[in-house]
Amino acid sequence: MTSSFDFAPLFPAGLPAPSARWTGLAKYSFVGGNNDSEQVPLDDLIEAANLALQREGRSLATYGLAHGPQGYLPLREFLVAKLKRDAGINCTVDDLLIVSGSLQALDLVNATLLTRGDTVIFEQDSYQGSLTRLARLGVNVIGIPLDNDGMRMDVLATTLADLKGRGIRPKYIYTIPTVQNPTGSIMPEGRRTELLRLSADYGVPVFEDDCYADLVWSGQRPPAIHAMSPNGGVIHIGSFSKSIAPALRVGFIVAPWDVMSRMLALKTDAGSGALEQMVLAAYCKPHFSTHVPALTKALRTKLDTLMEAVNEQFGTAAEFEEPKGGIFLWVKLPDQVDTLKLYQAALAAGVSINPGPEWSTDKNHSRSRLRLCFASPSHQQIREGVAVLAEVCRKEFGVPARSANVENRA
Amino acid sequence: MTSSFDFAPLFPAGLPAPSARWTGLAKYSFVGGNNDSEQVPLDDLIEAANLALQREGRSLATYGLAHGPQGYLPLREFLVAKLKRDAGINCTVDDLLIVSGSLQALDLVNATLLTRGDTVIFEQDSYQGSLTRLARLGVNVIGIPLDNDGMRMDVLATTLADLKGRGIRPKYIYTIPTVQNPTGSIMPEGRRTELLRLSADYGVPVFEDDCYADLVWSGQRPPAIHAMSPNGGVIHIGSFSKSIAPALRVGFIVAPWDVMSRMLALKTDAGSGALEQMVLAAYCKPHFSTHVPALTKALRTKLDTLMEAVNEQFGTAAEFEEPKGGIFLWVKLPDQVDTLKLYQAALAAGVSINPGPEWSTDKNHSRSRLRLCFASPSHQQIREGVAVLAEVCRKEFGVPARSANVENRA
Repeated sequence: MTSSFDFAPLFPAGLPAPSARWTGLAKYSFVGGNNDSEQVPLDDLIEAANLALQREGRSLATYGLAHGPQGYLPLREFLVAKLKRDAGINCTVDDLLIVSGSLQALDLVNATLLTRGDTVIFEQDSYQGSLTRLARLGVNVIGIPLDNDGMRMDVLATTLADLKGRGIRPKYIYTIPTVQNPTGSIMPEGRRTELLRLSADYGVPVFEDDCYADLVWSGQRPPAIHAMSPNGGVIHIGSFSKSIAPALRVGFIVAPWDVMSRMLALKTDAGSGALEQMVLAAYCKPHFSTHVPALTKALRTKLDTLMEAVNEQFGTAAEFEEPKGGIFLWVKLPDQVDTLKLYQAALAAGVSINPGPEWSTDKNHSRSRLRLCFASPSHQQIREGVAVLAEVCRKEFGVPARSANVENRA
Repeated sequence: MTSSFDFAPLFPAGLPAPSARWTGLAKYSFVGGNNDSEQVPLDDLIEAANLALQREGRSLATYGLAHGPQGYLPLREFLVAKLKRDAGINCTVDDLLIVSGSLQALDLVNATLLTRGDTVIFEQDSYQGSLTRLARLGVNVIGIPLDNDGMRMDVLATTLADLKGRGIRPKYIYTIPTVQNPTGSIMPEGRRTELLRLSADYGVPVFEDDCYADLVWSGQRPPAIHAMSPNGGVIHIGSFSKSIAPALRVGFIVAPWDVMSRMLALKTDAGSGALEQMVLAAYCKPHFSTHVPALTKALRTKLDTLMEAVNEQFGTAAEFEEPKGGIFLWVKLPDQVDTLKLYQAALAAGVSINPGPEWSTDKNHSRSRLRLCFASPSHQQIREGVAVLAEVCRKEFGVPARSANVENRA
């Protein structure tokens, strides 16, 4: 379609740069929250779709299936039970809002609380999608360093005190406490208590993103921060993207009515996709609790393959902590490696990675780090892709040395 | 869930008022774009869901089914053929963006072109969802009066000239030319040509909302304005909400790459619901062209029931033009009727209506007008609901007089 009409003078200032045309996924794709296609519970999803449509398909003629703006009631009922069982959260269907993926949850929470110039607190390494949203909104993001137990409370305490001294009340403390993205840590219960104490002391709510919390190797997770809160100052979000399938755009928010009623006024999309909600509800009630352990087990074997491949190909040049769940590995390469440059060179060789600086508030700290997602590629693709990546990295940065491979095998 | 944490001090200025709790649909609901539940093509949708999931269900593990940010390719391919056949639009899959209902289309087009203080041109009576969006964005809306052929070009010409004289270049001319909402008119081809000439003369693009264009009683519609444009200065949007089912949140945008690439940069939702896109594509290719005439025929009989009921209950007190398609009737009551007040009183009696002032840029002109949607209620509900509405209106405003009923039957 050719257009001689010139739209350019009509664009307002501050638009993001135009997107490039889609050229498909890389041959070896270690990016994005994509899942393991072998683990999509296809037969049961088909059965659920049949059941849901036969039972209630005619209600698709009504916006939101006439269940109101908070979403399909049976899905909210499933979530009430699931959140109680898995995360210890006590809530009712009235505290839940079904959204079009947790990205819409981020947008709604941000739109409800933030305005240009505001300050929020983040984990230093964090989810790119959350970070880019705040940059777009003109919000100041303060990153708190992480250790193996997640956000460091000593630094959070001094940061909050410092901000208070400067008259700044942050709008929220954003955390991914259960399988942190990208580090894969799980914040222990004691630290969650401490976080809640600081939240209460400074009047700063916690924004808990529990997107990956279903995928814990041990099957055991601490109670959600939301569940432990004595004052209700926690907004909790989650998703079915990681536990079932990401192309189904279904996530949820648990929030008190004060916040919920504001978010509902901002959610002007006439409801999130109802067919996906119906099918999920019909599927999850009987199958969720058996599907998730099977999925987690399969993901764990892929992590093993990835860690093995990274050790084999990068040797001591690659450092990482074993994640406690999830679908990604956060890797530190030698300081001379600039992963933004590595990203470009690797992509040209058919390997896509997430360069560290896109997943961090501290570009220096993250310069030689990268995130590798392992759920989507096959075991063989993982092995081949990591080998190509190591080859590219060696060519560009001289590491890993050729001997690494041999050393490691010794 | 009780919360003692006080979120209120954290809300930024300018948030919309909080939503009230959902209390369900009115007993007699004449509002919203809800469709006829009897006409949901259930068996074929179930077959399509089975087919799509069996064939491609595993690809749900990948965001957007790996078809890129513009949406599921077979659905875009269907739309290319459908838009050519029905609306005369020549486009390719690269010109199409699948969105989460045409409401997301409105948001993306607005975000791409508008900033606070801008001016846009509307039809004087228009879609509430479009009007409220612009009010939220702080954009000035200039309404052009309608006649039985849609937007009046003589007034549009003088308005554009006047604005140009004042140094104002409107960002777009928004029109619902094919089954106008709420008047139900169809803009003839000659007037479309005239609109395009004015658009080119003043460098103001046309924003064509073809949301209801599938539902034309005659089965014949003029070519889309997009199809007639000599310079490509038209953004065209549409939806499956009215032709298939509104709870499936699937709409689309046709736009040149200049605009498309900007919208893609703003669509940060990781894709619209893929299951709904898969099912729609599998359903529409074989069934769309036979389903729509059957649906339209059923809707036409409901319109007949509604017009009969309004004539019977309101007599000469209610004036309306017979719509040329769609799911709503735009009714003028005597001047003393304030439909915002009628709305409240009717709701208390179990009847929901759309008061005119919410669907117009001219509150005076629309004060005694209302919109009645007829697709969702049954024939019996239509008759009963209109009788209750007339009773409420008589009690509140003294019209229709008791004798109207009798007069009309004579």
